[in-house]
Amino acid sequence: MRLPLLIITALFAATHASAAPPRPGLTSAQVIAATQPSDWRALDPENTLLMELPAGQVLIELAPRFAPRHVANIRTLIREGYFDGLAILRSQDNYVVQWGDPDAEAPEKARSLGSAARKLPAEFSVPLKGLPLQRLPDVDGWAPLTGFVDGMPVGADPRSGRAWLAHCYGMVGAGRDNPADSSNGSELYAVSGQSPRGLDLNITLVGRVLQGMQWLGALPRGTAEMGFYAQPEQRTAIRRVRLLADMPEPERPQLEMLRTDSAAWRRLLDSRRFRREEWFVHSPGHIGLCNATVPLRPRTPAGAVPAASTPSR
Amino acid sequence: MRLPLLIITALFAATHASAAPPRPGLTSAQVIAATQPSDWRALDPENTLLMELPAGQVLIELAPRFAPRHVANIRTLIREGYFDGLAILRSQDNYVVQWGDPDAEAPEKARSLGSAARKLPAEFSVPLKGLPLQRLPDVDGWAPLTGFVDGMPVGADPRSGRAWLAHCYGMVGAGRDNPADSSNGSELYAVSGQSPRGLDLNITLVGRVLQGMQWLGALPRGTAEMGFYAQPEQRTAIRRVRLLADMPEPERPQLEMLRTDSAAWRRLLDSRRFRREEWFVHSPGHIGLCNATVPLRPRTPAGAVPAASTPSR
Repeated sequence: MRLPLLIITALFAATHASAAPPRPGLTSAQVIAATQPSDWRALDPENTLLMELPAGQVLIELAPRFAPRHVANIRTLIREGYFDGLAILRSQDNYVVQWGDPDAEAPEKARSLGSAARKLPAEFSVPLKGLPLQRLPDVDGWAPLTGFVDGMPVGADPRSGRAWLAHCYGMVGAGRDNPADSSNGSELYAVSGQSPRGLDLNITLVGRVLQGMQWLGALPRGTAEMGFYAQPEQRTAIRRVRLLADMPEPERPQLEMLRTDSAAWRRLLDSRRFRREEWFVHSPGHIGLCNATVPLRPRTPAGAVPAASTPSR
Repeated sequence: MRLPLLIITALFAATHASAAPPRPGLTSAQVIAATQPSDWRALDPENTLLMELPAGQVLIELAPRFAPRHVANIRTLIREGYFDGLAILRSQDNYVVQWGDPDAEAPEKARSLGSAARKLPAEFSVPLKGLPLQRLPDVDGWAPLTGFVDGMPVGADPRSGRAWLAHCYGMVGAGRDNPADSSNGSELYAVSGQSPRGLDLNITLVGRVLQGMQWLGALPRGTAEMGFYAQPEQRTAIRRVRLLADMPEPERPQLEMLRTDSAAWRRLLDSRRFRREEWFVHSPGHIGLCNATVPLRPRTPAGAVPAASTPSR
């Protein structure tokens, strides 16, 4: 068979290159298969939203630890139906997809923000002290220190004592104008290409797409400046946005996420630094902050043995 | 105006964070506007191919310096019409789009490779010595040394004396099976997400998409394993692939690329490490190998003054 780029097997790879000699250990599939139920956590229904597009659903986990004011405002906007019937306004190739009110700039036509705040402080970073950062030892050019907090990729600087969410693929942020405090969460974007880490510390990130990036990423790119759609009919309608907490239990996506404070996550990172699948002839001995995707799987009823899920690359 | 994430202006940014104090210098737009005609190079028609999809054209520059045998084979395949009427077989979100013969695995149905080689040696790396590498001083976790050669992103290791093309967004490679020498250029892929640098030194890269990634990136993701399309009718047809050298001159895209061995390119990298646009309040003081996109612009007739083009981010 010639098609696959990656064939996951349980065999060890022979390593050609000098950088990373072969090391015993598990493949990603083996790490996942060996996890215990306690290595996984449920999604918090108050911090997870579901955006319904014509093509499919986008599941987003919010990050109140990093952007409490924006997350609270987004919850209010969702609960008052602000996003229902709005649209995807922009898709710029290898950069971001952005959504909100197409008429936000026209006071007489703009949708009311209801009881949500019009103005919020910028939430670009939080104190590093006290943050349960699971440190990633691998070097990162963009931040002196990196790691994960509750599944979110994080950069930090011990000198400034600050930590911040990193602009990896699928991260969601609050669009702003030139003033740093000009975002309020009514206009959001998701990173849809190579991580634009130069945006870190410049804009408030509010969460991460857990599922459904394939619907956002496959949207036609807009042809106006910065990937905005030139014609209103090119926009994609947002049918509805709900918090999981406000959905009937049977309608909620039943998923759980590998805990990034688990030994299983550390083993999974190791399996990405040192590839043991037969296909690989070289291992980098490195994993990038934005190349490490946290696995999700269907939530297992107590006592059942879940099917192993594996990151696709 | 609240919509834009990025507003390009000529003003200097006030910098909040400790990492990167403000530095005088030019914005990306100013660097591009100040380039001289000699900072740009034409595309080599023998090393550039145009793939026609129903949605639009994909322009790919080949890299014979890094994969001479594969590039020669791809030229033969193109000239014998091998790709015409074949299909996009796979789109895996945040990873790759892949194209070739859907029947390649069925000997009785597979399209003939004609006079092209069935088997080629792996071309994963080349000697570093003698390579005109324009070194990028910024740290990279995946390779001890990085830089650019003729516009292509490159990793290198002085200890092994080897250099290789890096899996950045838009890079094009030759799919292979488990044996390292099982690619021949008849099946190709383009990176469509966060740079999967763990593939570096594992597979033969053959070039880079210069224009048209928006058509590949916006393809629906395949639902079968690894993003392959589950049904033949979900595939996208490849109308035709031609080398620019074989196209009538007026039909060829008339473009030129900023030379990555120019001082203008070094200034452009500096303008990305230290952002001087009004929107930015923080500069990372860093640029990633895969975050630095080489500008293209319409080719200027001798004596004309070209419109300034600017990287969009």
